[in-house]
Amino acid sequence: MTVKGNLLYAQSGGVTSVINVSAAAIIDASAQHPEAIDNVYAAKNGILGVLNEELIDVGCESPEALRALRHTPSGAFGSCRYKLQDPERQQREFERIFEVFEQHNIRHFLYNGGGDSADTCLKLALQAKARNLEMTVNHVPKTVDNDLPITDCCPGFGSVAKYIAISTREASFDVAAMALTSTKVFVIEVMGRHAGWIAAAGGLASDAETDIPIVILFPEIPFERQKFMERVKTSVEQSGYVSVVVSEGARYDDGSFLADQGTRDAFGHAQLGGVGPVVANMIREDLGFKFHYAVADYLQRSARHIASKTDYEQAYALGERAVEYASEGRTTLMPAIRRLADAPYEWDIVPADLNQVANVEKALPRDYITEDGYGITEKARRYLAPLIEGEDYPPYSNGMPNYVRLKNVLVPRKLPSDWKIGG
Amino acid sequence: MTVKGNLLYAQSGGVTSVINVSAAAIIDASAQHPEAIDNVYAAKNGILGVLNEELIDVGCESPEALRALRHTPSGAFGSCRYKLQDPERQQREFERIFEVFEQHNIRHFLYNGGGDSADTCLKLALQAKARNLEMTVNHVPKTVDNDLPITDCCPGFGSVAKYIAISTREASFDVAAMALTSTKVFVIEVMGRHAGWIAAAGGLASDAETDIPIVILFPEIPFERQKFMERVKTSVEQSGYVSVVVSEGARYDDGSFLADQGTRDAFGHAQLGGVGPVVANMIREDLGFKFHYAVADYLQRSARHIASKTDYEQAYALGERAVEYASEGRTTLMPAIRRLADAPYEWDIVPADLNQVANVEKALPRDYITEDGYGITEKARRYLAPLIEGEDYPPYSNGMPNYVRLKNVLVPRKLPSDWKIGG
Repeated sequence: MTVKGNLLYAQSGGVTSVINVSAAAIIDASAQHPEAIDNVYAAKNGILGVLNEELIDVGCESPEALRALRHTPSGAFGSCRYKLQDPERQQREFERIFEVFEQHNIRHFLYNGGGDSADTCLKLALQAKARNLEMTVNHVPKTVDNDLPITDCCPGFGSVAKYIAISTREASFDVAAMALTSTKVFVIEVMGRHAGWIAAAGGLASDAETDIPIVILFPEIPFERQKFMERVKTSVEQSGYVSVVVSEGARYDDGSFLADQGTRDAFGHAQLGGVGPVVANMIREDLGFKFHYAVADYLQRSARHIASKTDYEQAYALGERAVEYASEGRTTLMPAIRRLADAPYEWDIVPADLNQVANVEKALPRDYITEDGYGITEKARRYLAPLIEGEDYPPYSNGMPNYVRLKNVLVPRKLPSDWKIGG
Repeated sequence: MTVKGNLLYAQSGGVTSVINVSAAAIIDASAQHPEAIDNVYAAKNGILGVLNEELIDVGCESPEALRALRHTPSGAFGSCRYKLQDPERQQREFERIFEVFEQHNIRHFLYNGGGDSADTCLKLALQAKARNLEMTVNHVPKTVDNDLPITDCCPGFGSVAKYIAISTREASFDVAAMALTSTKVFVIEVMGRHAGWIAAAGGLASDAETDIPIVILFPEIPFERQKFMERVKTSVEQSGYVSVVVSEGARYDDGSFLADQGTRDAFGHAQLGGVGPVVANMIREDLGFKFHYAVADYLQRSARHIASKTDYEQAYALGERAVEYASEGRTTLMPAIRRLADAPYEWDIVPADLNQVANVEKALPRDYITEDGYGITEKARRYLAPLIEGEDYPPYSNGMPNYVRLKNVLVPRKLPSDWKIGG
């Protein structure tokens, strides 16, 4: 069954180096399906743009600007952190969304995000069915957390993994050169509050040739201070230095985060600490080693300048496939990467039922972590290696990457403008 | 006057993305001057390698490994933080150094570093003259701090500047996309304890096209909390978000560092804070905005993956020229970049007298900073822009840059091994 009308695309949750690559693919592919898709709109700031009736007319952008989306990090149409509750509890929101869809003849909705947006997407798909609407609602995967189920990996993760692996290697080379008279312990704090996928990527910094001593603190392995200190001490004794990759989700046995250790300033005010400085200070207290720490924070997920080519290709292919599903009238799906071979990496795309995606988190398997809890196994390396393969460099002018800012012209409102969320 | 014998090269102080490029140039160029240079040795861990008689025989490395130095960050022979005192006060050290020089027929010494190593280099040059030795002692500039006098810029700085400008642009794009429902203030902490050269580079993240609201905290401008908060508040009100680039050297009017605000943990232990989290927490306290912070730390000075091509070329050319000085028997010099034109950038190399280099710090000119103290002027942009021009990418294997670890085979000792410093 072909459904015909406008397609609405929206970006959700934390943005990535390559979410705009999926956006570009969706815009490109939509033009190939005039039988199903008229105009392409993008919601401003994710689902909030639907609620606020702020729809961006993608047709107002130049072909050059749309092409530049492929090498521009972050969310070009704006993103949001806003999870829809149950339709019963948020009836007004759902009414509003479908009213906006109807007024603008939205027959295809594609939500590009992680776990929360998969849930929102499923709720909208079920509501559309319950309302007997002729429309498709599909999800396009994206999350640096890499925690969506079914798919081999999530667009955005490969580029973060590459950035963290490279940065850890580079900083470790730095420390190695200086360790005799200066820093002996380098700590890098990485993202991943719930799972250690990104922390695991730090392990790729070391290989047989570089032989960098790395200790990883995973959220999955309860932190034991004394055992950790022994490991750090041994590494410094053996190699002269050590690099510690710590996940922001690192926690104690009782589940409390290391980052929440209740740091206070001189006036007794609570400080929001990061786990990087917390671990670095512990090392200073217990072992007295000179240390440095880095907090990669947003740098890691926006580092389009060193995006993984594999990640780029998958982000594009998944966006393209989502439009194909829509143009075929298929709904409640998420295109997912299926791994066919590790090396060389082979993959294709299969449809995943959103019912099986929403509210399911893919954990880092225990056998990706070494027995002692501080490193990654060969199995983890086989999984991770292809995801960071290839470098997709952006074009530069005057020494700086040419990232685009879209005009983001809004489609004229059709509803009263008395609704406003966010800000 | 030609002096003939072995050449000893050493790396000093904080390492950079391109100090090994100068090393490669020195090794390459030395082979072109058999009339003056026999073997090339490298001191292990800078001047400490001389004191400890740990000299690396560069001839033991493969041509491939030596070539790979050009794209490997950090100091391949090890570096150190160790400043020689006055010859009168450290007579034993100086005796030892010249004894090692004599035993290994070192007739040319090249010290690659910043302010401290220029001082060490000058002391050695003067001592060599006082001892009537037939040898040359010259300095090769390198410092991310960009604070050496006479030279237009210092190798290592251009690449850090590029990294900070790109990272600030990328993270700002990220924040802009999320600001409606999430982070409104992003803080990035950058190096530069004494001068705001690197902080100034953060200003390049914004240009007419990207129009990113950036507030820079320079060490040169005393921090005024209320005035700063007003500026942050205005930027968030106007643009929805703001990026703050803060130098680790940011300080109050009385000279005390913001980073030394006496943060304590829950047990009352002093914490070594970074200025990034300190400023971020201040913003939370005063304005209540949701914030994130990044601490670039060593990532910035080791980010060979996005080195500036201009920086690369200058690092090579300066190393090459230093060998030419040595081969011509010239001593007590530092090859310096002379800027001939801004755009397109034209430069050549002139000899600077080490007496005019050592213990002189080049400050960031006040007219590079806007009147309000929070931004960079057009003059600063004209200075900085060419230094980040071009991308010199390293080769990759399996998604990771191919950085080399040298074998670092030591030349057999000729002196008793009872001397040991460092470690």
